[in-house]
Amino acid sequence: ILSKRIVVLPGDGIGPEVCNEAVRVLRAVSSRFGHEFTFDYQLMGACAIDATGSPLPAATLEACRQADAVLLGAIGDPKYDNDPTAKVRPEQGLLRLRKSLGLYANIRPITAYDQLLEHSPLKAERIQGTDILIFRELTGGIYFGEKGRSEDRTSAYDHCTYSREEILRIAHRAFQAAETRRHQLTLVDKANVLETSRLWRETVQSIAPKYPSVALDYLFVDNAAMQIILNPRQFDVILTENMFGDIISDEASVIAGSLGLLPSASVGDGAALFEPIHGSYPQAKGKGIANPIATILSAALLLDHFDLPEEADCVRDAVQHALDQGVVTPELNPTTLYSTEQVGNFIAYSV
Amino acid sequence: ILSKRIVVLPGDGIGPEVCNEAVRVLRAVSSRFGHEFTFDYQLMGACAIDATGSPLPAATLEACRQADAVLLGAIGDPKYDNDPTAKVRPEQGLLRLRKSLGLYANIRPITAYDQLLEHSPLKAERIQGTDILIFRELTGGIYFGEKGRSEDRTSAYDHCTYSREEILRIAHRAFQAAETRRHQLTLVDKANVLETSRLWRETVQSIAPKYPSVALDYLFVDNAAMQIILNPRQFDVILTENMFGDIISDEASVIAGSLGLLPSASVGDGAALFEPIHGSYPQAKGKGIANPIATILSAALLLDHFDLPEEADCVRDAVQHALDQGVVTPELNPTTLYSTEQVGNFIAYSV
Ligand SMILES: CC(C)[C@H](C(=O)O)[C@@H](O)C(=O)O
Ligand SMILES: CC(C)[C@H](C(=O)O)[C@@H](O)C(=O)O
Repeated sequence: ILSKRIVVLPGDGIGPEVCNEAVRVLRAVSSRFGHEFTFDYQLMGACAIDATGSPLPAATLEACRQADAVLLGAIGDPKYDNDPTAKVRPEQGLLRLRKSLGLYANIRPITAYDQLLEHSPLKAERIQGTDILIFRELTGGIYFGEKGRSEDRTSAYDHCTYSREEILRIAHRAFQAAETRRHQLTLVDKANVLETSRLWRETVQSIAPKYPSVALDYLFVDNAAMQIILNPRQFDVILTENMFGDIISDEASVIAGSLGLLPSASVGDGAALFEPIHGSYPQAKGKGIANPIATILSAALLLDHFDLPEEADCVRDAVQHALDQGVVTPELNPTTLYSTEQVGNFIAYSV
Repeated sequence: ILSKRIVVLPGDGIGPEVCNEAVRVLRAVSSRFGHEFTFDYQLMGACAIDATGSPLPAATLEACRQADAVLLGAIGDPKYDNDPTAKVRPEQGLLRLRKSLGLYANIRPITAYDQLLEHSPLKAERIQGTDILIFRELTGGIYFGEKGRSEDRTSAYDHCTYSREEILRIAHRAFQAAETRRHQLTLVDKANVLETSRLWRETVQSIAPKYPSVALDYLFVDNAAMQIILNPRQFDVILTENMFGDIISDEASVIAGSLGLLPSASVGDGAALFEPIHGSYPQAKGKGIANPIATILSAALLLDHFDLPEEADCVRDAVQHALDQGVVTPELNPTTLYSTEQVGNFIAYSV
């Protein structure tokens, strides 16, 4: 009997609703397979600011450090977005958590589901069969660099830095993933302009000989932003720095036909965190219309991380079954009115 | 009789071929309308490095400073891209030229042509009627910040800075453009993470009351990268900083169905430069298959800049006529084999 402690960070907006369903599915897995999962709910994001003044309270961070894995809903609240002077922001909590847990690699699978091809803004024949794995560096670059203002506040700066070590650790993971897939790795950068990009290119190039079965190529980020839409099937594994990864992976999510389907795993040396790629979607909060599948598939990645591949596949099969049966939230099928909870229940029962 | 001096920078790859056709069209305009255009060809890019050692020779810069406008083909050569240690790069020429001429605003219209809807990777019903004008800041931000390596070269940095002045001058232009269009301006930033983005948001917000007819909204760049594909018709004018503009505008180009159709204007206080948004496409060099339309439409923007709207519309009508008649290069119609020159000729005759 396997015993694991999972910290749940429901967060803001639709975060709590989608987390509920993922936890429901994990409970179903634990009872079917006889594991013991305990769930420890903690605050992070705008809800944590409201309750404690801090987007990442010390208790939350401590619980995450002790946990076997972290499941996150979503964070963010519009009341902070249009106030450029706000000192405390929900996003700081997430950024600090990533940094504190050393979650340097954010891994996002992008798959075109056959049942959902019609929902994609892209023509079906362009995307059918797309299967991309994006490795986004998550604890370096401009999001974590020094930032500030001039004394009179009329100019601002953000510094981007990368070290060879930061690049190596995620690059090895990306090469290794490519070895188990279609043996192709694309580094996305802006090496014709940025010095950090040149370091990325040089570092990744330098370890390529260790992975002789993997073909390495390079794409400038502006071109990559086009190619992902023009011909997504050309990609196997994509590796890129933090900000480019943020943009490119959200962009690539349109291929799937719904943001509500896409999970992610953030891993490092120890802990790991699992979250849907969608945001807190405050307009949908409390309406029961949020799609829980991205979070449920994130829970499947969490099971993979626990080295429970059978359990993980069982969750993925249950999701597939829901898609096949059309048990989906309104954004995927406006005529059948399944709620967040009904979709979660259906998937939990199918486990 | 209007007399103007145009510096032509054919550049690398397909640059010379597409410039030839744009110049042909400008000659047709000048003879039909009785203007006197002189064309002064100068070196920039990889060809300039090969000839002089510098990507932007002093003579080229001087000629551009004296000119009434600059027409650029494309620059870049793969031999520099995979050499992270190259000291001299073609791109430096373009960046330095932008900076030296003070071309702080890059303006890119993105239009879905009805005749080409089938070429877009996006479903026709999602994009039909799309008409976006992107204002990309072009002489600030991380592309122009301090950059370098640590002493042992194992870490690298790029600094992003923006001043209120740099933001104001392009923001006013974007608001003014929105006033003549559909009265909607979207600022794309990452204000939830970056200090420079917060300065952008605060600065743009501060002048919004001067343009009461324009509705201002904000989008995080990751979300913008999705929205542009999910629902491009929601946008009128988009304003953004240099790097986000580089990525977002290239991404948005897929809407048009071909990169080969999209022109751009870079303007500042004095001089102005006109160039297609596509690159030097070295694989196609010398094959006569490059689409000259993006450069020809850039020449139309140049005519607008000379305050010759009738002449500019005449060029745009001629392009429209070529599209209607299917006189296009192979990427738009593989069955009729019109060359770069034949398309240019057809458009020049239709002027
Ligand atoms: C909320 C924000 C800080 C975050 C990021 O940009 O990293 C989010 O957009 C993401 O992609 O996880
Ligand atoms: C060639 C390069 C420096 C340039 C840029 O990124 O600005 C190009 O991509 C562009 O968009 O004009």
